[in-house]
Amino acid sequence: MTLQRSGGRRGRAAKRASSAEQTFDAAWRQWKRPYPPVEQFSADEIESIHETSLRVLRDIGIKVLNDEARGLYRSAGMTEVDDKIIRFDPDALMALMAHAPADVTLHSRNPTRTQTLGGPNVGITTSAGSPNCSDLQGGRRPGTHADYDNFCKVAQAFDVIHFIGPVVEPQDVPLGLRHLHMTRSIAALTEKIPFVYFRGRQAIADSYEILRLAHGLGEDEFPNTCVSYSVANSNSPLQLDGLMCRGIIDAARAGQMMILTPFTLAGAMAPVTIPGALVMQNAEALAGLCLSQIVRPGSPVCYGSFTSNVDMRTGAPAFGTPEYVKAAFASGQLARRYNVPLRSSAPTASNAPDAQAAYESQMSLWGALMGGANLILHGAGWLEGGLTISAEKFIIDVEVLQMFAEIFKPVEVTEATLAYDAIADVRHGGHFFGTQHTLDRFETAFYSPLLSDWSNFENYRDRGAMDTTQRANRIFFDTLAAHEDPAMPQDRLEAIDAFIAKRTQEGGADIEQ
Amino acid sequence: MTLQRSGGRRGRAAKRASSAEQTFDAAWRQWKRPYPPVEQFSADEIESIHETSLRVLRDIGIKVLNDEARGLYRSAGMTEVDDKIIRFDPDALMALMAHAPADVTLHSRNPTRTQTLGGPNVGITTSAGSPNCSDLQGGRRPGTHADYDNFCKVAQAFDVIHFIGPVVEPQDVPLGLRHLHMTRSIAALTEKIPFVYFRGRQAIADSYEILRLAHGLGEDEFPNTCVSYSVANSNSPLQLDGLMCRGIIDAARAGQMMILTPFTLAGAMAPVTIPGALVMQNAEALAGLCLSQIVRPGSPVCYGSFTSNVDMRTGAPAFGTPEYVKAAFASGQLARRYNVPLRSSAPTASNAPDAQAAYESQMSLWGALMGGANLILHGAGWLEGGLTISAEKFIIDVEVLQMFAEIFKPVEVTEATLAYDAIADVRHGGHFFGTQHTLDRFETAFYSPLLSDWSNFENYRDRGAMDTTQRANRIFFDTLAAHEDPAMPQDRLEAIDAFIAKRTQEGGADIEQ
Repeated sequence: MTLQRSGGRRGRAAKRASSAEQTFDAAWRQWKRPYPPVEQFSADEIESIHETSLRVLRDIGIKVLNDEARGLYRSAGMTEVDDKIIRFDPDALMALMAHAPADVTLHSRNPTRTQTLGGPNVGITTSAGSPNCSDLQGGRRPGTHADYDNFCKVAQAFDVIHFIGPVVEPQDVPLGLRHLHMTRSIAALTEKIPFVYFRGRQAIADSYEILRLAHGLGEDEFPNTCVSYSVANSNSPLQLDGLMCRGIIDAARAGQMMILTPFTLAGAMAPVTIPGALVMQNAEALAGLCLSQIVRPGSPVCYGSFTSNVDMRTGAPAFGTPEYVKAAFASGQLARRYNVPLRSSAPTASNAPDAQAAYESQMSLWGALMGGANLILHGAGWLEGGLTISAEKFIIDVEVLQMFAEIFKPVEVTEATLAYDAIADVRHGGHFFGTQHTLDRFETAFYSPLLSDWSNFENYRDRGAMDTTQRANRIFFDTLAAHEDPAMPQDRLEAIDAFIAKRTQEGGADIEQ
Repeated sequence: MTLQRSGGRRGRAAKRASSAEQTFDAAWRQWKRPYPPVEQFSADEIESIHETSLRVLRDIGIKVLNDEARGLYRSAGMTEVDDKIIRFDPDALMALMAHAPADVTLHSRNPTRTQTLGGPNVGITTSAGSPNCSDLQGGRRPGTHADYDNFCKVAQAFDVIHFIGPVVEPQDVPLGLRHLHMTRSIAALTEKIPFVYFRGRQAIADSYEILRLAHGLGEDEFPNTCVSYSVANSNSPLQLDGLMCRGIIDAARAGQMMILTPFTLAGAMAPVTIPGALVMQNAEALAGLCLSQIVRPGSPVCYGSFTSNVDMRTGAPAFGTPEYVKAAFASGQLARRYNVPLRSSAPTASNAPDAQAAYESQMSLWGALMGGANLILHGAGWLEGGLTISAEKFIIDVEVLQMFAEIFKPVEVTEATLAYDAIADVRHGGHFFGTQHTLDRFETAFYSPLLSDWSNFENYRDRGAMDTTQRANRIFFDTLAAHEDPAMPQDRLEAIDAFIAKRTQEGGADIEQ
């Protein structure tokens, strides 16, 4: 059941979690930020960003490359001008945004893993969408179905991961069938809340059908039960392409959460100034979010922030930069302005799971979490600006996430924790190690690390001087080896497999539709 | 003059900074935290910690192993009981604390490097006090005078380092002469504000005399010009030893800044609970800080926080832990309760300059900086809980510090930075790379990294796949090779050398006195 690692939480952290097993640290599964969010700008400055983005939407507009979406916008009081451009009426837009819910509850098959996002609640996803994966043994390589399953299994083991992304692209599965197998793997191997790609009407419908079967929901129940999340990236600057429009519409009809994330890299697809990049992010986010509310008022949505900057010498995207941190703080202010949950991320541009990867991802994570993000995408495993998911980085990130889960736990101040009696007992020059006050608490007093090595140099050296990346590699594969599928009723799995067989026979999905 | 690295700040960051050279980014030399501090506890809870620490001081007291210090305490209304224990009158103690200044200005020989601590102002020091040093070429080894000088030279090159600690113990210099050569090296090789060890009356006086000569101050001017800082560690629990008392008294008489830092590792020298460890930290800090105010009301002091926890399985100290972060947030609240500057740190327990070192130090740093610390000790180079200073870790830390200096810079929200016109110009699906708005700003828009590699995987691989630690090694030694001593009047250096020759002839200092 466990990795046979000593120590309290260290063992439990890597333990298989099945629906039959109800022992877990609730605070690791349900994060609540205990601190007020850090603010980058004054209220007036945020209002200037808001007002400027409304001006962009009103006077410049968004190019919308889908006929149905343009029709929906027109039906809600927006204006279509030449060349597929929708111009937005600010009052109509804000009236639509008022329908967007402040909190979204996403259901897991395991009720202890159901997540509510919004306010101080925070959920974490794995890295998502990488074409490549890597580990110390196999190096960097195109992802396969087997790699995809491996990352799903390891994600299932850690309670601080709440959502699962498309961890790596299974490039050995034909494109038209890929969504079927990706969704089945997530449903069968994990209890994490799954991501559904916006890869066309058929692929979305197939994915939702597999999730409906996995949850045992009736066709009428599914659209009122949010069990998945998707990301629509606007095509910055100021465009919504056909696939994204299709996804926004279909997710809203199906009652599934849609995150509108503009890909606003300052200096490239967005202005070189942080306020300017935020104006563009905000305009695109509002345009996409309000489309969901036109389709179905009250449908679950999330404001997505991914604003970062590029290296101005090369154009390469950068993450975890000072500019990224400031944009993350400001994005929290903007999402709260509209009273919707905020999605942020924990990315890095590093090519290796090394010190740079650790400090850039942690910069991103502090910016996101202290800025008030409710959902951290790419929380574990991301490397190379998303081109690779790394086994070792995954474990490094899990360690940092576990530390954050512990930071977010409140500390009680009571007569017992103030410890006057213990201090009076030990007095001058003594030691607290063996006191009753310590013995009563030592097992749970402190976070016990999964990965960090706190031994002295001599012990570290004598054990082979394994650095953090090497230790992370071992933990990843030990965790993988310990995986057992979480329980799922046999008839549900059979129904899923029958559905996949039928859809395969039909030729899969047309991804471009 | 530069490292011949391309890019705006990248070159300048590693540039030799002499007093003749006045081109620098003022925001890197004078950090101001733009965010309100993060608070761990409610005001009531902080008051409970305060009140409990006063109860500890009143009813249990502090063991004070120096006759003069006990006499000073008695003269200020405190009570001596058996076994050298001083019990504190809370009202008298708080009246003394009211004399402690809210801000301390520490003077550099180069006025652009003079630092004021307190309020939102933040200063950074190098790592300090390690017996060992390490780099990839030479491995881990006992420190020498040459190593000491090398770290001084590299520290001088980076504007985000404001203070210099005793970077590594020069073990090849006899103990009684060591302070003379350490102080001379700092004075001659750097313009950073120096640390003075509390290693007995003679060593302190010698160090102050060298600094007086370096600054060209008269004997009457020196005690009114703060040019150095020292740390007195209480011998937790609840003891002040002879050397520390001696230092507190001598620093106050000389007008030099004294940081009272309790070494309160929860579960070992302090209670296993965070509130209990903070009670002990606070009691010891107040006891030491008020001694300075008895000696000389208004003398410059700083509240030192180093509360962390141990690994309860082994007793090994741990740093950058969730508990460390919470204690750092809370310590800011306590220091502000007494209106004195706060010292915190950026430590790690890692044995290698790897991912663990990066994520633990950054956890510490975020806790310290967002908690409101004014002085970050061990800001660059620390490894192994302080047993080693690492060349590579030094550069990794400088990179993270530079990122923080940039995060702390305010962002202007103006019509120009909101960039409406640039957005109107680029419109849908265009690119901002070549716009005038970008061209006007691209050179200074974003932080340009010293160490981080943002190139794509193919370029990274083709350049030898050097990881962050290997790149940091190269930057350290390139920076060292580019060092030139900052200007100092020749007569001052001659006076210092004559003084050192005289004190050497006299046999140096008796460190135990």
